[in-house]
Amino acid sequence: MRATDVDDAHGRGSANIEGSPVVCGPAAPTASSAAVLGPLRFDAVRLADGGQLGAWQALNRAATIDHCVAHLESSGNLDNVRRLVGASTEDYRGYWFADSDVYKVLEAIGWETGRAGDAGWDGFVSATVWLLRSAQESDGYLNSWMQGLHPERRWAALEHSHELYCLGHLVQAAVAMSRAAGRDDLLTVARDFADLAVRELGEGGIEAIDGHPEVETALVELYRHTGERAYLALAARMVELRGRGLLPHGRFGAQYLQDHAPVREVTEAIGHAVRQLYLAAGVTDVYLETGDETLLASMEALWRSVYEEKTYITGAHGSRHRDEAFGDPYELPPDRAYAETCAAVASFMWNWRLLLATGHGRYAEEMERALYNAIAASTALDGRHFFYSNPLHLRAGHDGSNEDAPSERLSWYGCSCCPPNLARLMASLHHYVATGDEHGIQLHLLTAGRVAAGPATLDVATDYPWDGRVEIAVEGPAAEWELALRIPAWCARATVTIDGQAQDAAVDDRGYVRLRRAWGGSSRVVLELDMPVRVIAAHPRVDAVRGCGALARGPLVYCVEQADHGDVAVEDLRLDPDDPPQPGEADAALGVPVTLVGKAAVDGSSPGALYGDYAGPVPVSDVAPLKAIPYFRWANRGPNPMRVWIPMR
Amino acid sequence: MRATDVDDAHGRGSANIEGSPVVCGPAAPTASSAAVLGPLRFDAVRLADGGQLGAWQALNRAATIDHCVAHLESSGNLDNVRRLVGASTEDYRGYWFADSDVYKVLEAIGWETGRAGDAGWDGFVSATVWLLRSAQESDGYLNSWMQGLHPERRWAALEHSHELYCLGHLVQAAVAMSRAAGRDDLLTVARDFADLAVRELGEGGIEAIDGHPEVETALVELYRHTGERAYLALAARMVELRGRGLLPHGRFGAQYLQDHAPVREVTEAIGHAVRQLYLAAGVTDVYLETGDETLLASMEALWRSVYEEKTYITGAHGSRHRDEAFGDPYELPPDRAYAETCAAVASFMWNWRLLLATGHGRYAEEMERALYNAIAASTALDGRHFFYSNPLHLRAGHDGSNEDAPSERLSWYGCSCCPPNLARLMASLHHYVATGDEHGIQLHLLTAGRVAAGPATLDVATDYPWDGRVEIAVEGPAAEWELALRIPAWCARATVTIDGQAQDAAVDDRGYVRLRRAWGGSSRVVLELDMPVRVIAAHPRVDAVRGCGALARGPLVYCVEQADHGDVAVEDLRLDPDDPPQPGEADAALGVPVTLVGKAAVDGSSPGALYGDYAGPVPVSDVAPLKAIPYFRWANRGPNPMRVWIPMR
Repeated sequence: MRATDVDDAHGRGSANIEGSPVVCGPAAPTASSAAVLGPLRFDAVRLADGGQLGAWQALNRAATIDHCVAHLESSGNLDNVRRLVGASTEDYRGYWFADSDVYKVLEAIGWETGRAGDAGWDGFVSATVWLLRSAQESDGYLNSWMQGLHPERRWAALEHSHELYCLGHLVQAAVAMSRAAGRDDLLTVARDFADLAVRELGEGGIEAIDGHPEVETALVELYRHTGERAYLALAARMVELRGRGLLPHGRFGAQYLQDHAPVREVTEAIGHAVRQLYLAAGVTDVYLETGDETLLASMEALWRSVYEEKTYITGAHGSRHRDEAFGDPYELPPDRAYAETCAAVASFMWNWRLLLATGHGRYAEEMERALYNAIAASTALDGRHFFYSNPLHLRAGHDGSNEDAPSERLSWYGCSCCPPNLARLMASLHHYVATGDEHGIQLHLLTAGRVAAGPATLDVATDYPWDGRVEIAVEGPAAEWELALRIPAWCARATVTIDGQAQDAAVDDRGYVRLRRAWGGSSRVVLELDMPVRVIAAHPRVDAVRGCGALARGPLVYCVEQADHGDVAVEDLRLDPDDPPQPGEADAALGVPVTLVGKAAVDGSSPGALYGDYAGPVPVSDVAPLKAIPYFRWANRGPNPMRVWIPMR
Repeated sequence: MRATDVDDAHGRGSANIEGSPVVCGPAAPTASSAAVLGPLRFDAVRLADGGQLGAWQALNRAATIDHCVAHLESSGNLDNVRRLVGASTEDYRGYWFADSDVYKVLEAIGWETGRAGDAGWDGFVSATVWLLRSAQESDGYLNSWMQGLHPERRWAALEHSHELYCLGHLVQAAVAMSRAAGRDDLLTVARDFADLAVRELGEGGIEAIDGHPEVETALVELYRHTGERAYLALAARMVELRGRGLLPHGRFGAQYLQDHAPVREVTEAIGHAVRQLYLAAGVTDVYLETGDETLLASMEALWRSVYEEKTYITGAHGSRHRDEAFGDPYELPPDRAYAETCAAVASFMWNWRLLLATGHGRYAEEMERALYNAIAASTALDGRHFFYSNPLHLRAGHDGSNEDAPSERLSWYGCSCCPPNLARLMASLHHYVATGDEHGIQLHLLTAGRVAAGPATLDVATDYPWDGRVEIAVEGPAAEWELALRIPAWCARATVTIDGQAQDAAVDDRGYVRLRRAWGGSSRVVLELDMPVRVIAAHPRVDAVRGCGALARGPLVYCVEQADHGDVAVEDLRLDPDDPPQPGEADAALGVPVTLVGKAAVDGSSPGALYGDYAGPVPVSDVAPLKAIPYFRWANRGPNPMRVWIPMR
């Protein structure tokens, strides 16, 4: 296999522009982009149903997407559009950005249809596209809140109206439908609206940005999909206009709207986490297509702020409920973690773009961390209940009456941005497993499945994340190319054999073992990652978890939940870092192959005074069994206290 | 002196109803009330200018009140009323409860005038009362927001309108003006509005409560002041109607409005802290005047929730910025402490009522804790800058751009409820020092000044809170009575002498040393309170301060501030609990007679990875000087990091 075979096959380049929509997944830089890695074709990877990623994707297909479709009906999102064409007499319901949920569900259906075929959604899609087309103004404008309630306010209240945010999600849905489901009717709707935005808000038009970034990344993708540079220009213009004070600031300040400073001057992530991360994805996309290195430099500085000072161990973001915002450096309270599901999804998307831009494994590492913890925890075992906020600690006596901090997952939310966001990500999840470049194939997420990159195929057999052994059967014609395997940062020791022969498993400065050789016929690569239980400590300035350890194994963060601890309060468990729990039996009811079991000391001081003279370390009264389960499986047994960070003896 | 002399003198009883308004302070239970202690006359206590409480009161007179008056003009509060009578063409400015700030300033002026005479406010008061009278509807209604912008919505949006909240503050201002400043014109305005509320919202009228409790305690006081039982009945009715679902709930839920459960069923403080605490003061007032023991029982249960699980070491309340709310039990983050100044003032007021109701020193203890820490910290040295939120930790790199968490005190706020609340409390502060009952006199706050309770006078000389020695010269005719001295809970050892003779200094179960004897002529009581530096630890479930100690001495909580630590980051200081800093030299610039000085180890790990495998306790690299100042004096040297809770080695 020649390197160019791989390059041709991975879907990167002009294929998308030249009319092979099925080739591309959600984010497909053009051939002229600055990307150093390219996504594979959208159909190049097939996840095994038995693997964890495949299981999540299957659950999305079997449960989550239909659940979302049903809620678009029952929550009024569709009626909001119908009332514009006289097809509903209901009042407008939900938030002003309710249209975006419709679009995200359509996007999910688009990817899922392309991945595995229609599952009865076609009628819904056709009816909804027809409805949207019917409701669309003749000039292309489409927004059920503004058209229905404030038609005179078009573009006039972008600090909160989400008009461009909704346009962005419409565009992403249309791209998915066009690329993966093979229908372009929604693309026509989206382009008409996007063309209006270009005419009215583009060069020479109104200087406008949206209080909620999202349209930037969408417009770049629309450029990639259609070849129309005006979309890229509008995205770039909106990146440039940000931080110039165009938006009136409300009580949460300019940072809430990500309008506090020009993009290139921002070195710290502050304000609304989802908005910051969507913006970062858009800026990175603009870099990829323009090659403006100053944008990449600003994104790398921002990345350091986010991931070196403001990220939960679960890969989640947002320390504050008040304004859904990043906190100060090291402000990472587990109990009041906002950790919005959409922020984790946005983080995943941003890191994917940085991975393509740089080829550095640290970005794939953050994708993996978020995926297996913050993102996975958002969905219940039934695929029909979701967390919006993903705390790392639920206190005994928690008041779960507010939907921003419930005691268990809810089936839907007043602001239900997260469930459809999960649906669209899961439907395209396989797409993020591997990339290609002129050297060969890079495997970023180690999961069971099949990767077909041009003539070479990789059959990956593994129980990862439960086990560190990864067997890869490589098949293909004779050719020299490089198979790059990302070695997760948590792994202290990895070995690699090819057909039984030990290989140099040195990890390079980008985080990969690179197996360059003349491949051909069948080869069997075995990667063994040491996967001991780890006791993680946080930087001492993370005051909220001082003196605590978190249990992890492989990419999974574990937690202790009251359901496993009988009469012993999980709040009172004390972890011995020198004798942490070890891999134990499966929990079949939770679908967990590996729990961690051991013993813990028990705090003997409760109840007691709130404050008192310090009298030495807290006494322990007893020893009790400790059982830890993966964080992503918590809260599947009714509301009960939970801790990720466990005080140490 | 006969016991009845004391009883006559302390201002408790029917004097207020029978027309001796100057006798009473802000909360004066009637003679028929269930109170076991009675307030002294409003003029019975004189604070020494040299004492800390006296100094605060003097600063309020010299700076804060005038500052507030100026801001009522510049921030639009007065124009909001003027526009109702055509005397202003300005748009309405500020929040819908802006009237309440006018009332709180008038209340402050009322008490201050009664305490120490007019200081040039008379013209302002007369003009403002005239303005209010002019704007008042003929039926008594008065609310500049509703009259000016929503005249058709009277009583119809009480979940947010604050109409009764504003009425409450009008009533309290009127009572202060009548009792202390000797003018009844504002009382006429207040009674006309209150009478309207009785007619329209009383028995047989609309069932209504305000989303922001406050009117309940005010109406009880208006009953006490006028003898009109209809006001008490309306207050009691509103207590009974609470928690019945009368208010539509917004995104913060019923608890935000304190409408989540009937008062008697509430055992945990949840929701908006100020609303909860004002409501508690009102419920306690209703108990005092009705003797309904079920109300007292519910308040005692609520008190345990607040003070045993949800109070900051500074006496502050409210762990959440999002909804200005109490958190779950033990959820007390120092950095994101909301700790609203008004909540501390409300706590002070509630505990005063419980102290009168029960005679138990624990309530005076909480008054003192809040006063010297949370409340005192709210005001800058200049008396013209204030904290609304009172964090116990300001991080390095803190973004202080939002007014809910600024890096230093602001001169005024968009929601500026706190500065005038401080002004009205400080103007009446002397009133809370002592009480009387049939046994004698109780000294609750040990501060320099003079207490004249009937024929007996107590001249109190002390440098408290800087020193534990309290000398009391008792003068008066021969009589047997009891002098009760509250021994603060922080004091492990106290001694008492009278005229040099050691006394039994056993503290009774209410927290007092009781000196019952035949007094007469002159006696010299000397109380010596041991006042060592204490290292305080929190209950182990207060996760946010695990492994940390707080420094305290006497009633004062201390903190470390970057301004005293040069190049060593206060975030990196490590306290040795076995060798805490000791009393050191005064800091004249800060007005602090006693700082704490010593040494601290320094965390040698910064900067470092956000997460990593646990590798034992954080290494220390060095030893550095540590200087702690009283928490209440922090942030008087520009924005800089600060910690109350210091990690321990």
